[in-house]
Amino acid sequence: MEIIKVLLEASKRVYDNVKHMPGTKESGGDFGRGAGGDISRRIDIVAEKTILDYLKEINFDCVVLGEECGKVELSKNPKGFIIMDAVDGSTNAVRGLPFFCCSLAFATNNRLSSVTDGVVIDLSRGDRYYATKGKGAFLNGKRISVNNDKNPIYFVVGLDISGISPKVLGRLSPIIASSNHIRHFGANALEFGMFSKGLIDVFIDLRDKIRVTDIAAGLLIALEAGGLVVDKNGKPLDSDLGYDNKLSFIAASNKKALDDIMDKLNHI
Amino acid sequence: MEIIKVLLEASKRVYDNVKHMPGTKESGGDFGRGAGGDISRRIDIVAEKTILDYLKEINFDCVVLGEECGKVELSKNPKGFIIMDAVDGSTNAVRGLPFFCCSLAFATNNRLSSVTDGVVIDLSRGDRYYATKGKGAFLNGKRISVNNDKNPIYFVVGLDISGISPKVLGRLSPIIASSNHIRHFGANALEFGMFSKGLIDVFIDLRDKIRVTDIAAGLLIALEAGGLVVDKNGKPLDSDLGYDNKLSFIAASNKKALDDIMDKLNHI
Repeated sequence: MEIIKVLLEASKRVYDNVKHMPGTKESGGDFGRGAGGDISRRIDIVAEKTILDYLKEINFDCVVLGEECGKVELSKNPKGFIIMDAVDGSTNAVRGLPFFCCSLAFATNNRLSSVTDGVVIDLSRGDRYYATKGKGAFLNGKRISVNNDKNPIYFVVGLDISGISPKVLGRLSPIIASSNHIRHFGANALEFGMFSKGLIDVFIDLRDKIRVTDIAAGLLIALEAGGLVVDKNGKPLDSDLGYDNKLSFIAASNKKALDDIMDKLNHI
Repeated sequence: MEIIKVLLEASKRVYDNVKHMPGTKESGGDFGRGAGGDISRRIDIVAEKTILDYLKEINFDCVVLGEECGKVELSKNPKGFIIMDAVDGSTNAVRGLPFFCCSLAFATNNRLSSVTDGVVIDLSRGDRYYATKGKGAFLNGKRISVNNDKNPIYFVVGLDISGISPKVLGRLSPIIASSNHIRHFGANALEFGMFSKGLIDVFIDLRDKIRVTDIAAGLLIALEAGGLVVDKNGKPLDSDLGYDNKLSFIAASNKKALDDIMDKLNHI
């Protein structure tokens, strides 16, 4: 089976298994901190188990890197890594805010740049954003691309500032002061999907808090949709797949928008 | 007819008339700046006309205060004011981000504190949040109230910082640094609805940019749902209904959360 089909089927099973949970008491609880460091909620546990069970069922030879479960070796001869955040936006899910997703990626080696397939499924609507390297990005079977409008008056800027330090917030302030439409919906992987569909023009997270499990799928989808994604020094975003990596990124729909953001960041 | 029923019917007609538009070219365009100062898009114009046509059809004796159309006297002997932002979150609507609403309120006099009825309809889902003074807040017929959980670890903080000055951003930085779940969906009236339903614990906008048309309905719904809504000095939010008023607010689901926010704001 093609790898993208494995990821799509796994994401569909997560959707089916958790869709009754959001906003209910059943979704929450506190199951201690997962491998990624966040508090695990019941919906996270159910979603991860769904994926692990499926990969075992089809004897998929891989090593799983999970937000909650950590590293799970499903084979002695793995083809590669499955990188999963089974529920990104768990707080939204538990509260019933309709914005959370499941992020699944496959990498051949121990680096983000070796991700070949990625799926982000919107768990409140069932929409699936996905990409295979070199083959473009899709939403429910339809090709998608980043917005090519270059008029900054209407730019929508996604910005994650939750828990950000005053110093980094200060660095962002010229961008914030000049943006009329700042958004944060609370599930970064899904916001990468929306960026890839052209709904958001720029997406920035400079908190040094993003893990590879959060971004592996969204990054590939964004790049395949024609987006530019760099680290805080302006270099193409990459890292190994270690849990300790805490990343920052700037995604922009075109070079002009990216240059404008980098200029504003560097003029403090 | 009860006033709340007039507002509910008007909001339903807006939903019916614009629901095909979001994310389409038809929704956008630039129709100059409306009375409130924002650029009017086609979806704004269609939505306002729907409300004005309905109020004329039922001979509703009132003065309308509209975000785009300004002050329209529909009667020589008005019973009061209809305060409308026919589409709040126009940018989201035009882009296809599923988060925008219609806000309609009725006030007996020229002050926010005289608002007796308010409706906010989620124009992407059709959900209606509404309240009549002294009778509680409702979502689609079901009583709603703010969240009474007081555990700040899980607090979701709504925060509008679009175009905010570096100085005010600095004042907010202790709140931002200590909040793990900051959100902004881009339609303040609807965010008041979500706050009233208990999905958001604190909602802050200190930009001095909010108009009475943005907030009239949401404020009543939030208060009727048990929320606290104050201005930046901690006084109950009020103003006359003039277009030139540019308001700031802090909404909190309980006194402890409000005190915590005010403390953080005042310790710079």
